[in-house]
Amino acid sequence: MGELHRTRALYAVIPAGGSGTRLWPASRKGQPKFLLPLPGPRSMLQATVDRLSPLMPYSNIYVVTGSPHAVAVARQLPELPEGNILVEPAPRGTGPAIGLGAALIARRDPHAVMGSFAADHHVTEPERFRAAVLAAVRAAEQGSLVTIGIKPTYPETGYGYIRCGRPLLEHDGFVIHEVEEFKEKPDRATAESYLGSGRYLWNASMFVWRASTLLEEMRRLLPEVYQTLETIAAIWGEPGYEEKLAELWPQLPEVTIDNGIMERSDRVAVVPADFGWTDLGDWHSLGELLGASEGANIAVGCPVIAEDTESTLVYGRGRTVVTLGVKNLVIVDTEDVVLVCDRSRAQDVRRIVRRLEEEGKLLLI
Amino acid sequence: MGELHRTRALYAVIPAGGSGTRLWPASRKGQPKFLLPLPGPRSMLQATVDRLSPLMPYSNIYVVTGSPHAVAVARQLPELPEGNILVEPAPRGTGPAIGLGAALIARRDPHAVMGSFAADHHVTEPERFRAAVLAAVRAAEQGSLVTIGIKPTYPETGYGYIRCGRPLLEHDGFVIHEVEEFKEKPDRATAESYLGSGRYLWNASMFVWRASTLLEEMRRLLPEVYQTLETIAAIWGEPGYEEKLAELWPQLPEVTIDNGIMERSDRVAVVPADFGWTDLGDWHSLGELLGASEGANIAVGCPVIAEDTESTLVYGRGRTVVTLGVKNLVIVDTEDVVLVCDRSRAQDVRRIVRRLEEEGKLLLI
Repeated sequence: MGELHRTRALYAVIPAGGSGTRLWPASRKGQPKFLLPLPGPRSMLQATVDRLSPLMPYSNIYVVTGSPHAVAVARQLPELPEGNILVEPAPRGTGPAIGLGAALIARRDPHAVMGSFAADHHVTEPERFRAAVLAAVRAAEQGSLVTIGIKPTYPETGYGYIRCGRPLLEHDGFVIHEVEEFKEKPDRATAESYLGSGRYLWNASMFVWRASTLLEEMRRLLPEVYQTLETIAAIWGEPGYEEKLAELWPQLPEVTIDNGIMERSDRVAVVPADFGWTDLGDWHSLGELLGASEGANIAVGCPVIAEDTESTLVYGRGRTVVTLGVKNLVIVDTEDVVLVCDRSRAQDVRRIVRRLEEEGKLLLI
Repeated sequence: MGELHRTRALYAVIPAGGSGTRLWPASRKGQPKFLLPLPGPRSMLQATVDRLSPLMPYSNIYVVTGSPHAVAVARQLPELPEGNILVEPAPRGTGPAIGLGAALIARRDPHAVMGSFAADHHVTEPERFRAAVLAAVRAAEQGSLVTIGIKPTYPETGYGYIRCGRPLLEHDGFVIHEVEEFKEKPDRATAESYLGSGRYLWNASMFVWRASTLLEEMRRLLPEVYQTLETIAAIWGEPGYEEKLAELWPQLPEVTIDNGIMERSDRVAVVPADFGWTDLGDWHSLGELLGASEGANIAVGCPVIAEDTESTLVYGRGRTVVTLGVKNLVIVDTEDVVLVCDRSRAQDVRRIVRRLEEEGKLLLI
């Protein structure tokens, strides 16, 4: 019954920004990763909401997105009340986005505990995820800024890491620790030593706190951002607030919640957890997620006819894709671009996007 | 001046049939190889007409095609008089198609010398080709059924071969020989022995003869076909001929000019020649034709962005194709199908087409 009480009081803010250039050409500036059905059938944003919805009513879930995506977000999430889709006039990073959510939630419910979760991560075991969130809620109620850290399974160099300190409390099998330090993306050797030590977790940018705790830390660590967000929140939804938002928002500094708050606060705790998390950052990782068995081919979104084909991932939009005598490929078929890429080079797709940008081929990105 | 005289009297028949399944998915039943811009910019049929047009006026060039392609052929060849595009109610092979052309030409000009040339072969050196045709004309004027044979450059197993006999005459540097025998597609060892002997030529299905000579041989060797074609030719273009054509044509046996006439006649001569001929039978051979240098990539019909890519051929329709970290691929992008194939497997594309046919996916073929 304690769980149920908490469940009712929980809120969430989902910052939905970023385009995910390594998933180009499926992801574009106008069609970012979180709007895509990866791995499908629901979009990553929809799946994020689905994952949270057993913990709280839809009316407690807020999405903060940029104006170019407001319409798509509204269409993808008809369950959310109109007022829960907050539209930034310009992207300013997760700091202002999550901060605005916290300021609005705190006005609605001064005792609210809220979480913040990326719109474009994948979770294989949503029940384990929710159990971890509820453990984080327990620590958040005691005044911590809580992050959920993922137990690493291999020495990934593409994620940031969190070093665990002493244990603070235990809940439902989760042991919550102090955070000693946040670490940037490591090199391979460092990542291996992190993995070997057993003290490091992947930073998955999942946070749980009382809205009031975050706002206190924001007032202390980012006072100007705090002041501006309070001003905006005070008039939110009232006549003239759009003009005010358009005037004040662009003046905010660009800052992430990680850099601006978590790495500088001494009230940070972490829940080590393990629920099949991946940021699904590139085509190879989508292949890994979906690959049932060694050598199997994977088709998402289109019919595939594969002859003498191995370990190939095809992501399409309905057109038939035929492969013959190939292996370890990623094939992405979109309306205006076809990508054929060796799976081992999936990380380099962003180089292509950068090159297109430099060459002024902006219609393609 | 002798050349010019002949030039005026020359005629040509281009049988335009067959779909070229190894060039799928660019070639389809509804869009056969001869209608495609391979290697472009003109279609193979247009290039065939272009290649012949310095030898004769357009009004002397006939195309025999199936009813499904009549409109496309008419649009691609606005230079040809309407009456020069002969439409078969049903495909019956090159025998009836070329025979009909000969019967109509003979009625127009009893002394006509005519050539017949496939609509979907490629020639790199058209002037050398025309010189070979004129040499063949010289032999044809002496009553031979003349074929132009290609000097083989490697032991190809996908072509038929012609064994040369004693020399008959020489013209403009070409030595015209009797034909001893036509050979079916050989195995590798046989092809190598053919190449080593220096006596064999590739059969490129190029023929030159007096229309009257062909008709005489046809009356002797394929009397029923001859009779039917004469009946059809006698009423060609007159009221009621379409009904007669629709009635008689389907009764014709399916027979090629090679099997029905050339391999059985004793009046056959061959002009050994060398003008960069290829039947452009599969994607790999298109790559060979266009590949400027070892390892180079080739793009036909679409913008290609190639990063760390080698020996890859892309044939598209305007959509951008991006490759990263791949080599030796053929990528064909069409409206409804994308093919990604290892170049060494280009011959097996027809297996895919057969499989689609068996599976009833007829919209794709």
